[in-house]
Amino acid sequence: MRTRLIRPVVAAAAVVLSLSFISCEKREAAEPAGGPPEITLVIHGGAGTISRDKMTPEKEKAIRDKLTEALEAGHTILRNRGTALDAVEASIRILEDSPLFNAGKGAVFSSEGKNELDASIMDGATLKAGAVASVTTIKNPISAARAVMTQSKHVLLVGPGAEKFAEEKGLEIVPPHYFFDQDRWDELQRAKEAEKASVTPPSRGKVMLGTVGALALDANGNLAAGTSTGGLTNKMHGRVGDSPIIGAGTYANNKTCAVSGTGQGEFFIRLEIAYDVSALMEYGGMPLREAADKVIKEKLTGLGGTGGIIALDKDGNIAAPFNTPGMYRGWVKGDGKAHTAMYSDEEVSQ
Amino acid sequence: MRTRLIRPVVAAAAVVLSLSFISCEKREAAEPAGGPPEITLVIHGGAGTISRDKMTPEKEKAIRDKLTEALEAGHTILRNRGTALDAVEASIRILEDSPLFNAGKGAVFSSEGKNELDASIMDGATLKAGAVASVTTIKNPISAARAVMTQSKHVLLVGPGAEKFAEEKGLEIVPPHYFFDQDRWDELQRAKEAEKASVTPPSRGKVMLGTVGALALDANGNLAAGTSTGGLTNKMHGRVGDSPIIGAGTYANNKTCAVSGTGQGEFFIRLEIAYDVSALMEYGGMPLREAADKVIKEKLTGLGGTGGIIALDKDGNIAAPFNTPGMYRGWVKGDGKAHTAMYSDEEVSQ
Repeated sequence: MRTRLIRPVVAAAAVVLSLSFISCEKREAAEPAGGPPEITLVIHGGAGTISRDKMTPEKEKAIRDKLTEALEAGHTILRNRGTALDAVEASIRILEDSPLFNAGKGAVFSSEGKNELDASIMDGATLKAGAVASVTTIKNPISAARAVMTQSKHVLLVGPGAEKFAEEKGLEIVPPHYFFDQDRWDELQRAKEAEKASVTPPSRGKVMLGTVGALALDANGNLAAGTSTGGLTNKMHGRVGDSPIIGAGTYANNKTCAVSGTGQGEFFIRLEIAYDVSALMEYGGMPLREAADKVIKEKLTGLGGTGGIIALDKDGNIAAPFNTPGMYRGWVKGDGKAHTAMYSDEEVSQ
Repeated sequence: MRTRLIRPVVAAAAVVLSLSFISCEKREAAEPAGGPPEITLVIHGGAGTISRDKMTPEKEKAIRDKLTEALEAGHTILRNRGTALDAVEASIRILEDSPLFNAGKGAVFSSEGKNELDASIMDGATLKAGAVASVTTIKNPISAARAVMTQSKHVLLVGPGAEKFAEEKGLEIVPPHYFFDQDRWDELQRAKEAEKASVTPPSRGKVMLGTVGALALDANGNLAAGTSTGGLTNKMHGRVGDSPIIGAGTYANNKTCAVSGTGQGEFFIRLEIAYDVSALMEYGGMPLREAADKVIKEKLTGLGGTGGIIALDKDGNIAAPFNTPGMYRGWVKGDGKAHTAMYSDEEVSQ
């Protein structure tokens, strides 16, 4: 076990949080106390070829610090009786603004050398949802997704129509070069060279399947889920993965759970990964962890897909199964302790 | 009961079919014979404000004739041991090419006066799927969806990227004015005037929620589903509904059923309508009709949405619940008799 103190990030919230290396999967279930539910926030920063031998201490620290910052931002909202939706949006915006993750500022490049972003958000209390796909000028796609949910009669807007809508609603618009990142550009060039040579692109320990997501359970017992991504390096122009698809990459329902996915989006769409966890709970009577494991370790793996999910049920139980070498993830509950994990072998340490 | 003879439509298939006014919902289940499954094709042409007092005999005949033509095209393929996917695509292409339905040639206009088309297709044997959304130049979006499924590594392509892909694959590209239809244009103008006056647009007996879809069960026991639409009149530029969303508007799985939806797409996305029928069968142990009824009559209606689905299970059972005044629909089984129905009160008559 390693524990260290994290700096207070929000002026008003000088809560000192401890960071532990913990596997979500092995965390014990929260015990429903009969009173109000324990506020909970769970995030991920992508699943993929994450392994210790390819990770530098500096990179690892930067990623864990950013995950912690996102957890703290969301937790501050939940602690002050803010909504699950607000917490999800705030956490994801921090991850979108960081070049460390494949969403917003760190988005990968499509085969045409563009950053095409997708995001979605869902409210477990009302089953309302919003999403944007294939947008290139919206700084924080998760906020555009939320605006679609709350300020339009639609659920999914794509391309220039979505960008126009976001601009009309006063969201921050940036020039496409805002999303430029040299590492991601180099990654595209390697992918293109590999494509020409018909070999698998070298991974260099990168998060090949990166995406970010957040789930929250607020003091009123409401669940929310959100996901944001730059998609796949070298993806075809116009390709949309699971992240903006309600039921595939994102789902929330107060009756069951909230889920956000990361991985090979095509498999997540074909398997309705996010909603399937909820359906297994509601119709199959499974507890959260069993349902989440079945979806990833049996159904996704069985079909040949890779990736992972974070899942949070209405009682505050957490699951985070993945079939990749690693998944960036973190969570915080009522005690305010922020936890992060990256590898599959991280043990419970609290 | 009314029965009439239909002209043979395919030179090689001079099968005389009888047309009966039958409600899918009340049709008795096919009895599994123990041998190969009975080939079955089910189609819909949209649910909405369809009522006898607003329908002319000429319009009704034109719609029933076109549904029959689509059924015959698909049935010819199935009868000759073609695949469920081929039958679904062939049937939908006929409906797309007709201005009578809100898909392909008959697509409604978006608020910007454009026709933005969506379609998807799914193979129940492999769970492979393909979809296109927000395309404006592809004559038959269902064929583009199929090309995405079989000739790309992706499931969903949107906008110009999807159009470029379709062109590269040799699909027929048409100028945007190909989709122009005076009635649909007038419908948009009325919707815009109503929007200005903040009143509900007059329906004039039109299919306000039109979309087309097809399901097939072939001689090898494989299921397939497809859906194609022009979306909503006066929809926001870039709006994507449920039709191209696997699990929302379209789903097929040999283990359970095939489903295609038509209605208020936003509700279909939020409720994962198409996949939910399958989940209720697989996890909840419900027979097809009970699952389909629950999804439309309890869940969709409960959330305030309107529309309907056609559903076909692996044993050839059919369901077609809707909560609108009517839904254009039709089906044909091994005996080659094509049946069509439009209203909610059409009774079993065979």
